[in-house]
Parts: sequence; C-alpha cells; structure tokens
Amino acid sequence: MTLHDVSAEQAAREEDLIARVQRSFDSCQDPRLKELMQAIVKHLHAFLRDVRLTEEEWRKGIEFLTAVGHLTDDKRQEFILLSDTLGASMQTIAINNEAYGDATEATVVGPFFVEDSPRIEPGEDMSFGAAGEPCWVEGTVSDADGNPIAGAKIEVWEADEDGFYDVQYDDDRVTARAHLFTQADGGYRFWGVTPTPYPIPHDGPVGRMLASTGRSPMRASHLHFMVEAPECRTLVTHIFVRGDELLDSDTVFGVKESLVKDFDQHPAGTPTPDGRVIDGTWTQVRFDIVLAPADGRG
Amino acid sequence: MTLHDVSAEQAAREEDLIARVQRSFDSCQDPRLKELMQAIVKHLHAFLRDVRLTEEEWRKGIEFLTAVGHLTDDKRQEFILLSDTLGASMQTIAINNEAYGDATEATVVGPFFVEDSPRIEPGEDMSFGAAGEPCWVEGTVSDADGNPIAGAKIEVWEADEDGFYDVQYDDDRVTARAHLFTQADGGYRFWGVTPTPYPIPHDGPVGRMLASTGRSPMRASHLHFMVEAPECRTLVTHIFVRGDELLDSDTVFGVKESLVKDFDQHPAGTPTPDGRVIDGTWTQVRFDIVLAPADGRG
Repeated sequence: MTLHDVSAEQAAREEDLIARVQRSFDSCQDPRLKELMQAIVKHLHAFLRDVRLTEEEWRKGIEFLTAVGHLTDDKRQEFILLSDTLGASMQTIAINNEAYGDATEATVVGPFFVEDSPRIEPGEDMSFGAAGEPCWVEGTVSDADGNPIAGAKIEVWEADEDGFYDVQYDDDRVTARAHLFTQADGGYRFWGVTPTPYPIPHDGPVGRMLASTGRSPMRASHLHFMVEAPECRTLVTHIFVRGDELLDSDTVFGVKESLVKDFDQHPAGTPTPDGRVIDGTWTQVRFDIVLAPADGRG
Repeated sequence: MTLHDVSAEQAAREEDLIARVQRSFDSCQDPRLKELMQAIVKHLHAFLRDVRLTEEEWRKGIEFLTAVGHLTDDKRQEFILLSDTLGASMQTIAINNEAYGDATEATVVGPFFVEDSPRIEPGEDMSFGAAGEPCWVEGTVSDADGNPIAGAKIEVWEADEDGFYDVQYDDDRVTARAHLFTQADGGYRFWGVTPTPYPIPHDGPVGRMLASTGRSPMRASHLHFMVEAPECRTLVTHIFVRGDELLDSDTVFGVKESLVKDFDQHPAGTPTPDGRVIDGTWTQVRFDIVLAPADGRG
C-alpha cells in the first residue's frame, strides 16, 4: 500500500494533522528554531505517510533509538555513528562547505580529533611510535587564487596499522597525531604511517543496523587533516589511498574522488626524500591543499 | 539561504551523496527494511538540504537526542514523548486506523495503559476511590452496519482530579482503570471520574523543546477506551470534554472533533441514572462506539 492508495477522507485526516502540528510552533519566538521544527514535522510526517509505517515498526523504531541512547556516553557517541552511517554527517558537511572553485573538498571530522596535539617541525615524524609502515607526506597550502600560504596550521591524525587511534588505548599514549605549520613557500612535509582500513565501533545498535541491512562497518583507509589560515574557510578533510577496495563502500560516505591519492610504495632500502634509509618498505604521498575564502560561496 | 540558491555543482554533490547512501542499502535481504531505510535516507537528507542545517545545529541535534536517550528508562520513555509531541504517534495511528464509514476514530494509547485491570459489572464504579467528580458513562458498541455487539470488551482508564494515573503513585494502588463487557443489546455503563487536564512529564529535553518553542505541555481532559470484539478492528481512543479550553492545543494532537463529547454536569442531590443520590455535583456523558471490520479499508 502506498500514499496514492488512500481515500480522500483518509488523506484529509493525515494532512489536517500535519497542519495542526505545524501550527503548534507558530508562536515560537526564535524564527530559525521555528523553521527547523516545522521542517522536522514536514519531513518526519512525509516519511511516515510514504512508507505507511505500521504501529509495530513505530515501536521497533522507538526501541532502536532507546538502545542508541543507552549506549551513548562520554566515550561512545552512538548517535553520531547513526548520523554518519546514514550519510547525514557528510551531507551536513557538504551543505556547510560549498563547492568553491578548486578548493579542496571537506569530509567528516570523525570522533578521534583531540585538541592540543604535539607540534612538530617540517619533516618530523607525527607517528610517535604508532605501529605502521612509514609514510612520507608532502604538499602545499595555497589560497583559491593559487597564492601559497605561509604559516597555515595543519593538524593531522590517523589510526595505527591495527586500526586504532591513540585515544582508543587504555594508556595515555599520544601517537599518530600532531600539528605543524607551512613554510614560507606554503610547503609542508612530515612522516606518518600508511593508512589502513578499520571498522567503526559496531557492537551496538548501529552495528546491528548495518549487519541487518547487509552493510559493512568498514571505513576506507585514510589520514585526517584540519587546515586553518587567516581569512580562509577552515578545511576538515581526509586523504584516501588509491586502490583501497573499500573506497566505494566507506561506511560513513566520506570518500570523494578528489581526495583519493597515490600512496607510492618504495622497496626496503630505497633512500627517502629526507635522505634516511628505512628498514622496510615505505610509502610517499603528495597532497596539495587549496583553501576557500572564509566567506566563499560557490 | 535556501536549496534554490545553491550552485549546480553543489546540488550535484549533495544529490550524489544521497544516491550513494541509498545504494548502500541495495543488498539488504529484507525488502521492507530496505524500503524503510531508503525512505529514512530520502526524508532525512531532504530535511538537511531544505533547512541548510549548520554544523552547530547538527551538534545541538545530537546533544538533544543524547539527552532524550539518557532520560529514558523503564519508567520514563522520553522518545515516545518526543514522537507524541511531534505528532508522529498520532500520524502512525491515523495511518493504521483508516477512516472507515462511521467507525469511531482512534487516538493515541499513551503510556499509562496496564494489562490485567479489574473487571467490573455494568453500572459499577471503575474509579476505585480515585479523587474526582463522579461521572456516569454510558453508550453502545456496534459494528459498521449498525448491529449491536454483545460481549465486546471495553478497557477504560483515566487520571484522577490531580492529573495522575494510579501507576504514577509510589504505592501499588489500582484506581481509575477497569474492564467490562457490553450486554446483549450492545450497551455499557459505568461510573468513573470527570476527566481533568494534566501536563505530560515536562522536566526533560522534550519539556525544554516545548518551552523554547512556546508550546504548552498540557493534555486536554480525556478518558481512555480500548474496545475489542471478534472480527472487528481493535479501537484505541479517548473521549474529550466539550468546552475544555485545551482542545485546540492538546500537546500530543490526540483531539478529534468526533471524540469531543458533552459531559453534562448535574447539581448536588440530583438523582443519578442508577437512582443514587450523590453528595456533590456529578457529570454524565454518552459515547456510542462503532467498530470497523478487522480488515476494513476506507
């Protein structure tokens, strides 16, 4: 049964209810809050009517949200996982980071960014002992007109080769995260580890939703960036590893083609760009970053 | 800014994301679950795009849902209150209880129905000592063709004059709830108390939502009914008190004009329909109930 099958009398009852709920917000003094609530009502009721939700399905929905709420605490934010896995986080980022010329695209911030990361100098190692294949990362930061930006602040963070961020360990380690600043020519360079795939936490209701709908909990391999410079829109993004088989099924929909980069692998013993000899393979990636102006519109 | 103001490139990015999220559910083996998830994605993203949700608003939304989840426990279901106050519960009931001829309309069940209520005989008192003005309730139960239904089971429950149901008290009282059966002519009659208005629990996030949008937490005065008979659609409904000033602002949108009834008040000392003399005023209401067939469509 679909919405098109209901009688005129039934449709009128359903529409009258929507009108009454909308009107209940008419005296809201905050115009934006009023707009948001009335839009929530519009789209929520459109969903209920579109699918002709059964009372049993409504009850299961309430139970699902209750379970999401009960799992959420200071360390586990299941509602953010739900938003992420429905693409709502990514859509919010898309809406708030409009396409602007060649400006680098944004993606999800994820739950693992931490303030007050250690500062490193150009060419230093942000892994601080995190397990993984060494990865040389270099590039430039420029504005939308192509002018290099000196002194841009770059935050980088990533999981180790076991798929865990430092904050997921019980000790107080600070690894695989740092910040650095671009040099006079807008350039930056540092050592990290080659990104590897990992699952989002999937032992809760969101994980059960993914399993019951045939979806994977895996995220494509990635390295997080947050780039700030005066008069520029702050960029929160990742770079992804070309060839990763998870690029098309990233469970939070974070992948954008423009963010997929070649991580070239070099054999053990090959001299590195900064003249070291590493005891094993290492990779190398270039990521040139373009920042939109702070108030840039498409 | 509205959806109509975005660039073609920006709109394409947003639509591509929706398509990717939809496709992620393509391999779901349960066709109804797949339909529901894809509809959730459609309407959720339409909301985000319509209002151009900011990242700060997204964060506040996550915090709100988290607070709703944390307040919810065995005794307090804040997600149901949220569904009720957004009209979603009432819409689900409307969808699942289609208009059918003169069949009595349904409304929300609410959180206070309890199984295994005491049985009363025709004309007995379901208040069991609950505080309130006595109220004589009578009527008939018939099918959609007008035939009286003997032996229909009627559950009735209501708040006392202080606005509380028995289960909201800390003792184990069982008051103002009962079930009875219609007689051979389809008739029923019982004593209860005149319904009075009361607020839904409003000391949590849903109450804050109502306050910040200028809405009242009050429910219009009502008496709950659940009526079951073989081969009939079970009816869950209330009757409301004509003249109650809350009829137009019932916070869960449960009021339907057809369910508003005259509760005629009689002076102290007026003999009652069953020949008693009551020490104070009393009211009287008639509610004739028509049940749709079990599989009745509009």
